[in-house]
Amino acid sequence: METKTAPAVVITPEALFGHWQGHRNLTRRVIEAFPEKELFNHTIGGMRPFSGLAMEMIDLANPGIQGIVTEQWKAIDELPHATGEGMPETKEELLALWDETTNQINRLWPMLTPERFQETTIAFGQYEGPVWGIIFYLIDNEIHHRGQGYVYLRSLGIAPPNFWER
Amino acid sequence: METKTAPAVVITPEALFGHWQGHRNLTRRVIEAFPEKELFNHTIGGMRPFSGLAMEMIDLANPGIQGIVTEQWKAIDELPHATGEGMPETKEELLALWDETTNQINRLWPMLTPERFQETTIAFGQYEGPVWGIIFYLIDNEIHHRGQGYVYLRSLGIAPPNFWER
Repeated sequence: METKTAPAVVITPEALFGHWQGHRNLTRRVIEAFPEKELFNHTIGGMRPFSGLAMEMIDLANPGIQGIVTEQWKAIDELPHATGEGMPETKEELLALWDETTNQINRLWPMLTPERFQETTIAFGQYEGPVWGIIFYLIDNEIHHRGQGYVYLRSLGIAPPNFWER
Repeated sequence: METKTAPAVVITPEALFGHWQGHRNLTRRVIEAFPEKELFNHTIGGMRPFSGLAMEMIDLANPGIQGIVTEQWKAIDELPHATGEGMPETKEELLALWDETTNQINRLWPMLTPERFQETTIAFGQYEGPVWGIIFYLIDNEIHHRGQGYVYLRSLGIAPPNFWER
């Protein structure tokens, strides 16, 4: 039973998991909405194409959830989106990496102990903060770059999926 | 003292407040980064100019925090960004509305009781969900549209503020 001294529950671990995977589900549909060629070539203002932005999300989320759970962090500048090595070359390859990441999160999330969210970690060996903050950063960074993908799609005359449908 | 049966704290109300206002601080700097004319006129792919996107954020956050705290919700289609009435016409006016909203959140947040986050509300009279979910939606929607503002700025040859600086 809860007592008056129990800490306030803003969001449960289960709800945060659903929130993250809901966002990831939407981003997957944004990747799918791009024509194959434009996914890898279309840019605005010297920015990366959406494939590069999506690969950054994969690089943060997949080694990210592993680091969050195991404290074994990879260095950010050794990941594919930074080195350019091992980048997907087709939409199919990108979506396969996306789905592998989704499965990785599904597999590892249950190992996050409740205490873990308030513990401090050094993400990717260089970003120090509470675990909840790292997870929020991964989600926020995905929303940020996905919003940019919406502009890319609109500039191509393609209607993106509804933001509120997860 | 906490016991084994206490619920897991993913994020405290205070940290969520800081997270939201941190994002709002960044968005304010994105508004400032736009030249006056382009803030109101520059668009890509038929989208709204950044002033319109920022006004949507203000319309959701200001009546939003009021509704969340008091359960007195305004109808979304009666707000300035929807009706076009009362829209700011200069960057100065927009920033003044932005700062008024910041102050409103600062003033009302302390009235949010810990239990409130898990209660259900019907935001703007039509979006039903837990209070935490409504707050997350306001933040996510801001990140989404601000990311679009980054593309607008890049397309104008202007470097946006760093995403990670709040």
